[in-house]
Amino acid sequence: MTDKETQAPAEEPAGRLILRTLAMPENTNPQGDMFGGWILGQMDLGGAILARELARGRVVTVAIDKMSFIAPVNVGDIVCCYGRCVHVGHTSLKIHLEIWVKKLEDANAVRRKVTEAGFTYVAIDDDGKKRLLPESLRNGWDGTAERAAGPGIC
Amino acid sequence: MTDKETQAPAEEPAGRLILRTLAMPENTNPQGDMFGGWILGQMDLGGAILARELARGRVVTVAIDKMSFIAPVNVGDIVCCYGRCVHVGHTSLKIHLEIWVKKLEDANAVRRKVTEAGFTYVAIDDDGKKRLLPESLRNGWDGTAERAAGPGIC
Amino acid sequence: MTDKETQAPAEEPAGRLILRTLAMPENTNPQGDMFGGWILGQMDLGGAILARELARGRVVTVAIDKMSFIAPVNVGDIVCCYGRCVHVGHTSLKIHLEIWVKKLEDANAVRRKVTEAGFTYVAIDDDGKKRLLPESLRNGWDGTAERAAGPGIC
Amino acid sequence: MTDKETQAPAEEPAGRLILRTLAMPENTNPQGDMFGGWILGQMDLGGAILARELARGRVVTVAIDKMSFIAPVNVGDIVCCYGRCVHVGHTSLKIHLEIWVKKLEDANAVRRKVTEAGFTYVAIDDDGKKRLLPESLRNGWDGTAERAAGPGIC
Amino acid sequence: MTDKETQAPAEEPAGRLILRTLAMPENTNPQGDMFGGWILGQMDLGGAILARELARGRVVTVAIDKMSFIAPVNVGDIVCCYGRCVHVGHTSLKIHLEIWVKKLEDANAVRRKVTEAGFTYVAIDDDGKKRLLPESLRNGWDGTAERAAGPGIC
Amino acid sequence: MTDKETQAPAEEPAGRLILRTLAMPENTNPQGDMFGGWILGQMDLGGAILARELARGRVVTVAIDKMSFIAPVNVGDIVCCYGRCVHVGHTSLKIHLEIWVKKLEDANAVRRKVTEAGFTYVAIDDDGKKRLLPESLRNGWDGTAERAAGPGIC
Repeated sequence: MTDKETQAPAEEPAGRLILRTLAMPENTNPQGDMFGGWILGQMDLGGAILARELARGRVVTVAIDKMSFIAPVNVGDIVCCYGRCVHVGHTSLKIHLEIWVKKLEDANAVRRKVTEAGFTYVAIDDDGKKRLLPESLRNGWDGTAERAAGPGIC
Repeated sequence: MTDKETQAPAEEPAGRLILRTLAMPENTNPQGDMFGGWILGQMDLGGAILARELARGRVVTVAIDKMSFIAPVNVGDIVCCYGRCVHVGHTSLKIHLEIWVKKLEDANAVRRKVTEAGFTYVAIDDDGKKRLLPESLRNGWDGTAERAAGPGIC
Repeated sequence: MTDKETQAPAEEPAGRLILRTLAMPENTNPQGDMFGGWILGQMDLGGAILARELARGRVVTVAIDKMSFIAPVNVGDIVCCYGRCVHVGHTSLKIHLEIWVKKLEDANAVRRKVTEAGFTYVAIDDDGKKRLLPESLRNGWDGTAERAAGPGIC
Repeated sequence: MTDKETQAPAEEPAGRLILRTLAMPENTNPQGDMFGGWILGQMDLGGAILARELARGRVVTVAIDKMSFIAPVNVGDIVCCYGRCVHVGHTSLKIHLEIWVKKLEDANAVRRKVTEAGFTYVAIDDDGKKRLLPESLRNGWDGTAERAAGPGIC
Repeated sequence: MTDKETQAPAEEPAGRLILRTLAMPENTNPQGDMFGGWILGQMDLGGAILARELARGRVVTVAIDKMSFIAPVNVGDIVCCYGRCVHVGHTSLKIHLEIWVKKLEDANAVRRKVTEAGFTYVAIDDDGKKRLLPESLRNGWDGTAERAAGPGIC
Repeated sequence: MTDKETQAPAEEPAGRLILRTLAMPENTNPQGDMFGGWILGQMDLGGAILARELARGRVVTVAIDKMSFIAPVNVGDIVCCYGRCVHVGHTSLKIHLEIWVKKLEDANAVRRKVTEAGFTYVAIDDDGKKRLLPESLRNGWDGTAERAAGPGIC
């Protein structure tokens, strides 16, 4: 029995790929590190995209779970945001988000998870008031809301 | 006994004013709302400023407490980030951060708290390795690390 | 025999998903339309990412095929850039790129191709001089260079 | 009698703190210096914030006094804009603005004045036409218009 | 007969100067090279300016000719976009665009052409539908549409 | 004698065209007006370009003359910065700068001067210390330093 056989399988990103981009120099702090807030911004943007797609309209961020940063992001890395809906309420959705990075030019590079957290969004109407989520989403919700997002993934 | 006498005192921001800026149109999402990630970015930037000032050097964000957004930010609002150091370890600092907003042109506008959370930073050296915080900070720490930041507030 | 049976299958994006983002208000021209140059910028960025991954280093854009814009991009659309390597020379690579968009909040929205074109990149060294592509890429090239990019897609 | 006793007191910023931010790499010119226009932009933004707060509405910059730059701004510095209203006319306000900087990580750093100037703003209505300033501001003006801005500083 | 007499005349930019700017650090890729998409963006912006001026209204990019990049753009270079209208149809215009650069601080620097291509624009109305170009432009068109743009060049 | 004959000639921009750009939505303040600081930034950038070209190296802004804004800039306007050197000292240069705008789509639009001012730049070396201007510039200066910039205008 070899080491290889006993290795735990590598962790995989959970959820759909929502955003994929390159860590650019314009998002660095004065020390040349990727600005932490930029990563948080990518998560909030990614979560809002999935939430709007499911909620069929405008949403607003109302809460974020505690989170840890377990790997750095460097300029030139490929940065991916994965998300999946983990709870559907009457007016709110919780999206679990993960950020993964990979070095671009290294043939042996493996992707690494940077952070993960649940972001909660509330559906709002044109006046900024809470609104009910679409009935089909609330009824059809069985823990895998991605199905509700329809097949037309771009 | 009047109503006024029984009113709870209005809540005040906790900590030093670290950032003060204007919510600009360039930070809005496609619905014209202030992009949530922009607010998170201001908090992380504000926390990193105070952490670098106390740590006398480079820091990196390693954790964020759970947080809620309890008031919206609109384009044209004055946005303030307040922070105070609430814990000093061997290599890490925890900064409690609050975001407050105020309407600019309304004579009766009051400032409102948008969100608050603890952000933890680790001090790193030029190679990105953990380093000890300055001895004066670790020894002098008595729960009010702002004193350690020195008197020369800009 | 129904109409449905005789329909041609819907066109699918060709290549790997390289970039996925949201068309943001900050990229609009003074008429509120998405700035055409922004779309070209996403293509060039996407092509350079795939080219750098295959070339294992720095590349520079040297040519772009003629192209047509066949569908508009609106603020709030999901924008995807797909790419695949279609030619490998001694020092240059040609990447075929496609931009696809989808409305975010419409349950019946289908993705639409916006434009496509071949972008040619030359591998350069630290001094900006042409360099040979990796031998494994040149030898292994059989028209489907994506294989050469390795399995670790982020 | 020591030198210390005879020293003039250090100069203090005049006026209210209007903006506080970090000099970021994205605002540098091709030589890596902070772009001079960025400093002017912070002054104009700071002056417009105070002018809008006092004028209770839209304002436009109409004049700037001559100014000198007496200290440099470096990437990573804390940059503060202070302002106070020094004249109230029928339709215009003059705001005196100062930019101060401080090194972030140096325990002995002192804040330094970078520049100062008067910026004049005219109050305009929705059609861009001049409008009278609020009566309370014109009548209450005694050379310290900050009072008129109300107590609710954020 | 001297060398000088037999030299071919240096190539000159063709068309009107539409944009003139400085290549700034914020437009570089992670390798510090000017981001190729930025150059394409300048061309599309330049072409749209001339097209809107001639079409007296909103236009949209519909096609780009094949193009080559024959000289690099470096941070700090002066970048110029020249354009001239080379075809007028019923609803569309073709603008030939050239990008030229010059080193800023070198007394012996000569300007160099970076790339050139034809960009085709269609005139659209407020609903985004094709519209006829102004009659004066279609009738007056004799291959030098710049004349139609009027004398008031800014 | 007709009115036309007695009209004063229209004012013309003074100096060389240094920058030509489009006023974009991303540079607006929360009221949708072009942000005043953006205009100042264009002037400082334009002046620094001409100063660096004449000084053959790095320069820093040290003073700005008083200035008035006599016409507004609107989103979508063509914005031009003209400049000419009006004084050459041992280490400093004074550049007179003018901003002119023109509506893009109006056949009868005339260009209008927005503002003008003298910006003074000091030549500095790699350590940020003052340095002498090139001897050829100091000796050759006769009030029209543009000549010294050489013929290769891009």
